Amino acid sequence: MTDRVIPASARAGAPGDPAIEPSVRILPLGGLGEIGLNMMLLESGEDLLAVDCGLMFPDDEMPGVDYVIPDFSPLRAKREQVRGVILTHAHEDHIGALPYLLREFDVPVYGPRMALALAGERLREHGLQDRARFVPVEPRRAFDVGGFRVEPIRVTHSVVDGLGYGIETPVGTLVHTGDFKFDPNPIDGERSDYHRLAEFGERGVLCLMADSTNVDRPGTTPSEREVGRALTDRVRRAPGRVIIATFASHVHRIQQILDLAAAFGRKVALLGRSMETSVRLAAELGYLHVPDGTLLPLEELSALPPYRQVIISTGSQGEPNSALALMAAAEHKYLQAGEGDLVILSARVIPGHERTITRVVNQLLRQGAEVLWEGVAFVHVSGHASRDELKLMLNLVRPQFFVPIHGEYRHLLAHARLAQEVGIPAEHALVIEDGEGIELTKTGARVLARVPLARVLVDGKGIGDVGTVVLRDRQLLAEDGVVVVAVTVDRTTGAVVAGPEIVSRGWVYEREAEAVLEEAKAAVREALAEEGEGVEAPLDRDALVALLRGTLRRFISQRYDRKPIVLPIVLEA
Amino acid sequence: MTDRVIPASARAGAPGDPAIEPSVRILPLGGLGEIGLNMMLLESGEDLLAVDCGLMFPDDEMPGVDYVIPDFSPLRAKREQVRGVILTHAHEDHIGALPYLLREFDVPVYGPRMALALAGERLREHGLQDRARFVPVEPRRAFDVGGFRVEPIRVTHSVVDGLGYGIETPVGTLVHTGDFKFDPNPIDGERSDYHRLAEFGERGVLCLMADSTNVDRPGTTPSEREVGRALTDRVRRAPGRVIIATFASHVHRIQQILDLAAAFGRKVALLGRSMETSVRLAAELGYLHVPDGTLLPLEELSALPPYRQVIISTGSQGEPNSALALMAAAEHKYLQAGEGDLVILSARVIPGHERTITRVVNQLLRQGAEVLWEGVAFVHVSGHASRDELKLMLNLVRPQFFVPIHGEYRHLLAHARLAQEVGIPAEHALVIEDGEGIELTKTGARVLARVPLARVLVDGKGIGDVGTVVLRDRQLLAEDGVVVVAVTVDRTTGAVVAGPEIVSRGWVYEREAEAVLEEAKAAVREALAEEGEGVEAPLDRDALVALLRGTLRRFISQRYDRKPIVLPIVLEA
Repeated sequence: MTDRVIPASARAGAPGDPAIEPSVRILPLGGLGEIGLNMMLLESGEDLLAVDCGLMFPDDEMPGVDYVIPDFSPLRAKREQVRGVILTHAHEDHIGALPYLLREFDVPVYGPRMALALAGERLREHGLQDRARFVPVEPRRAFDVGGFRVEPIRVTHSVVDGLGYGIETPVGTLVHTGDFKFDPNPIDGERSDYHRLAEFGERGVLCLMADSTNVDRPGTTPSEREVGRALTDRVRRAPGRVIIATFASHVHRIQQILDLAAAFGRKVALLGRSMETSVRLAAELGYLHVPDGTLLPLEELSALPPYRQVIISTGSQGEPNSALALMAAAEHKYLQAGEGDLVILSARVIPGHERTITRVVNQLLRQGAEVLWEGVAFVHVSGHASRDELKLMLNLVRPQFFVPIHGEYRHLLAHARLAQEVGIPAEHALVIEDGEGIELTKTGARVLARVPLARVLVDGKGIGDVGTVVLRDRQLLAEDGVVVVAVTVDRTTGAVVAGPEIVSRGWVYEREAEAVLEEAKAAVREALAEEGEGVEAPLDRDALVALLRGTLRRFISQRYDRKPIVLPIVLEA
Repeated sequence: MTDRVIPASARAGAPGDPAIEPSVRILPLGGLGEIGLNMMLLESGEDLLAVDCGLMFPDDEMPGVDYVIPDFSPLRAKREQVRGVILTHAHEDHIGALPYLLREFDVPVYGPRMALALAGERLREHGLQDRARFVPVEPRRAFDVGGFRVEPIRVTHSVVDGLGYGIETPVGTLVHTGDFKFDPNPIDGERSDYHRLAEFGERGVLCLMADSTNVDRPGTTPSEREVGRALTDRVRRAPGRVIIATFASHVHRIQQILDLAAAFGRKVALLGRSMETSVRLAAELGYLHVPDGTLLPLEELSALPPYRQVIISTGSQGEPNSALALMAAAEHKYLQAGEGDLVILSARVIPGHERTITRVVNQLLRQGAEVLWEGVAFVHVSGHASRDELKLMLNLVRPQFFVPIHGEYRHLLAHARLAQEVGIPAEHALVIEDGEGIELTKTGARVLARVPLARVLVDGKGIGDVGTVVLRDRQLLAEDGVVVVAVTVDRTTGAVVAGPEIVSRGWVYEREAEAVLEEAKAAVREALAEEGEGVEAPLDRDALVALLRGTLRRFISQRYDRKPIVLPIVLEA
């Protein structure tokens, strides 16, 4: 692949020779296209700076995988130039892979306190707390990292202390929005910094990189306060206990629930380890105000009459082992949902979780509880900007070049088209995907040839050792199971002296199908005998393996029309 | 569990002794609750009648399974009393399991011609065409099946020739809506039969069973014509080729596409075997009018300029091997999507298919095509009634008892509550799930104790032999793979004479991890040696198996923190 040069226009000249003209390079490692975790590299001269370092959770095509983390190989290639990481906010898809990065790269991490606190917890879990060179940052307080001058910009999002960044480079200013919306009246009063964004725009911005998540939504995303009002209304009318499941990181949502509980004279218990951690850290750091005496341990809460109880729980996606799912299945140790309870799933339905969520909803309804969730009621708002807010961001920052970030290809493309609607020339709205870089000079831009990136899979203690072959084998195993056939041959004569033995999993249920296994063995014995007839020397090892595999495959295919993985083992005695 | 008696009310007396008082029983085998296929038994005296006999496609908790079919055991228990099956319409979840039923029960099948034609195709595929005792039925032409007098009632749905049924029994009339909506101006002019439903209501209906699918949707479902207008508008403005993916069974949608293509002087090719079959059958039976010269083979279509081409394709759910997915991945033999093409996914996003659909959308956009789908444009309408239509059905039929059907528990419950909004007493709106029966007399109803029902899984040639154990094994195999360790022992001394050999799949990639397998073998050899020290007799078989399993599990857990299935094999030589 060759570089794609952006044609010159009235506003931008053609790029010069990068060897002479100073330039800055942008290289997304995730979040643009198919890799659903966020990390981006910025390169200027000899300095490399990373924005975010997130992980993603595997989909159903990655069985057994715990996480997916970014491919750090572009960093490894320039190990000495890595100056640090700046974090936008405290979501796992922006900070979750830090332990994997920091075990390899001993660099400082700059970010909002809440993000650093949660990242610190993760480092401790990995036994890497000594790698934490954490530098808390504040909006409008610029700092230097290598040759970059970095200024945090407040943005509202479904976390506390969300940031974007204005980044001055030798060729111009970059603005990275992080995940954002323009909440007109946020819970903590910390509005997205319209004024600072306007100032950046006024002074001139070379390139804007902005969140594309909600580009398909018309209008403006409602304020977080509106969902607070809706919840208040529901809890006011609730005759009994109220159980609200939401994301542990959504401190503003939790704040509103605590406040409304206090207003109605209800007490609150927390359910779920991540919920407890998040509330503890947010309260310690001053992001969350817990009204006096409102929080109780679950045992004490249970002693109160139901109309005085609120439970805030994890499990909003119906995750099978979450407290909420156990309660729904009537398998929770302490909690039993039933008549009079109101359960609210105050969260987005993350695509892929429809079935687990509706299962929990059905189970709770069956037990007599009332259930509200995104499918039937207004109980959640998004933390991402809709189209009108995206236009506002483009108009405030009015960049020379625009790179849509945080979305699948369809979102990035739609965001680039939206930018054209507000006057960004088509050739200055650059749709790139992970591994594609952009080189910007003072006057021009070009798209660089794609760097191949892997999705690095973490499975148990293994990082990156589970690849395509292993995943394909796991999928084949899931489809039709495995059948093992073992024989022992005499080391010198090659004659079969033991076996065949056959064991299987996931093909037929062995205890009910012993007769089938006996028939399979007979088929193998017969094939061995036939093969032996009229031949002087016994089969060599490869031929024997092929015979065993072929015979069993045929037997199973004819009998069951299934294709389990057949593993022949030949031992030598 | 005991029966739940519905209390008497002003409108209904308490049920009498069923041994004396005549009664009719309703037993859903699917479609009410968690089993997403449709089949219901009606029992009156010595007569058993089935309504529909559908299959469902497996979800990701059923790897390797081809279909799920109903549990016929309640029919087997009364084999001699089964009088026949009546079909409502030509969707797989209503007719797909007929081959499995008819191979066991030689009974007549009554239904609309299109449903019978498609069911006939399936029977031929199963080599069961001689079991087809098919009786086509017409709206308003009543017929007798055993002691039931059955009258087909026209309903509109996303198929041609959709039916509900009015069923007269000794204790009163039952009305079963099938899948329906009230399309005010359907493509074929065949409206839902308001008048006949009203007449049934006027004469008195004991029990209504009505489709709950869209009970969460307010208002009225738009007419199929509206999506036709939207598609026309899109195709009118399309500069090049148009590719429309939809359900093969949606003959009215296909009719509208053929008509609009003809109107714009475009020709049409069909893509996908089920699309070809459906169009052929619908045209033969007179349900589909193909404008003269409009249909062309794909080769001939490709010779036309792009602005004269329309392709109607399957693959609207992004199914990985569909023509559309292959085209999107640039892997189709003949078709290449690109600049100037308009691709429309004119179909519902079936939950669970979000990822495959958006993958196809992203790929097509990357190739330069324009893509419209339910997520971003009005390109589809539902075939199911929304709340206002459901209220109309309840008011037209005004039954004594009401049983919501076709939905998960949450839909059934919401539909029962909706019925209360139009005046059905709460205790006469009966929410039951699959396996729960209802016994109706002239004056009362009671819910019967639940009959346990299995989901019968079809995998290759096996029907029902894949159960919980096999599925659990398949899931475990998918999670972390399988490791097999084999040794051969001397038959008389018990000493290990060959092995250990170790093979694995889905744990680590063998070719890159030979060293690991060698270490694992060493660990096993060491364990065997240790165990042998100072012991007179070698281990017995069970102890040896336990030692092999334990050693390998420990090795893998310590090294990888993974838990593959470990299969020890001990051969005797």
